[in-house]
Amino acid sequence: MQTAVPLNDQLAAQTKVALRRLASAVAVVTCRDGQARHAMTATAVNAMSMQPPSMIVCVTRASAFHAALSRAGSFAINILHRGQVQISQGCGGTVRGEDRFGLGGWSEDHGVPVLPDAQACIVCVREGRFDYGSHTIFLGRVTSVAIQGTVDPLIYVDGRYTGLPTDEDCAPPFQSQIDMLCAGFGQSLS
Amino acid sequence: MQTAVPLNDQLAAQTKVALRRLASAVAVVTCRDGQARHAMTATAVNAMSMQPPSMIVCVTRASAFHAALSRAGSFAINILHRGQVQISQGCGGTVRGEDRFGLGGWSEDHGVPVLPDAQACIVCVREGRFDYGSHTIFLGRVTSVAIQGTVDPLIYVDGRYTGLPTDEDCAPPFQSQIDMLCAGFGQSLS
Repeated sequence: MQTAVPLNDQLAAQTKVALRRLASAVAVVTCRDGQARHAMTATAVNAMSMQPPSMIVCVTRASAFHAALSRAGSFAINILHRGQVQISQGCGGTVRGEDRFGLGGWSEDHGVPVLPDAQACIVCVREGRFDYGSHTIFLGRVTSVAIQGTVDPLIYVDGRYTGLPTDEDCAPPFQSQIDMLCAGFGQSLS
Repeated sequence: MQTAVPLNDQLAAQTKVALRRLASAVAVVTCRDGQARHAMTATAVNAMSMQPPSMIVCVTRASAFHAALSRAGSFAINILHRGQVQISQGCGGTVRGEDRFGLGGWSEDHGVPVLPDAQACIVCVREGRFDYGSHTIFLGRVTSVAIQGTVDPLIYVDGRYTGLPTDEDCAPPFQSQIDMLCAGFGQSLS
């Protein structure tokens, strides 16, 4: 006899499979709650409006970050660079609390922790929230923006990290193969 | 004398530069409003919660799609495949109204237009909305999910389309270079 899986659980499992295909940039969202700094890796980050410039971030109510962000007046969205996998993993769960700020060179913008060598830091004043199910959408009106370096964001898709296709992706194996081939020809000619 | 740019315009311009770095998968959101089908390309699509499985999509109030989605009971999020740039461009503005459904092989799921050869089709019942500034977040509870093919989503970043790095990206130039090199050696040996 088959055990019936509740419809909601089936749909959740299928939705998760579909979401593995919803490639997205990776951001670390940060805030200050009194003396304590908080950071959490998030992929559910989007623009809301440009009139006024505003952003949304979706956070699970089960997290300590949710409690901190509910009290904080401001937050920052730090869009990570391809080279910042360790920061993503740390702020995604492998490192706890204040120790997350030991990963990377953190700074502050109006009291909010920011990561100056991220692809972009967008600081927002929290202006609204929308609760549904297990999560809350926090809405922030943008108050400052900083950009760093060329466009090369960290991307999360299909349960793994990647970056954009670049010439450099191909160059090392290509050059090593050429060297090997040429070495082979050199030997056969000597 | 410098012309002062209003602070809000400056921030909007800076936020847009930052958002060029927020790489994201591309989806076409669809709905039915009476007899009329509607489709709109969107990158501001995210999961909301898994309890219950639910999705959000952010839509400008200035669009015809916003009016249709405000009346529709359901909508679908079709996560595009790397090969579906033309559908993204068409539903993003280059094609109008019903003609958008001339792009690709559209079908229906409970009356909602779906694109079966998209990476994934997530059909939702509209359950809530959240208005702010120029846009509305529409929230939908997932009612069905379909997956198609291997993971290879269309990605939009820095104002252009791309896909994930793959071995195929490197293989053609690599192989052609090898062929050219070997031909060169062959000639020198003959």
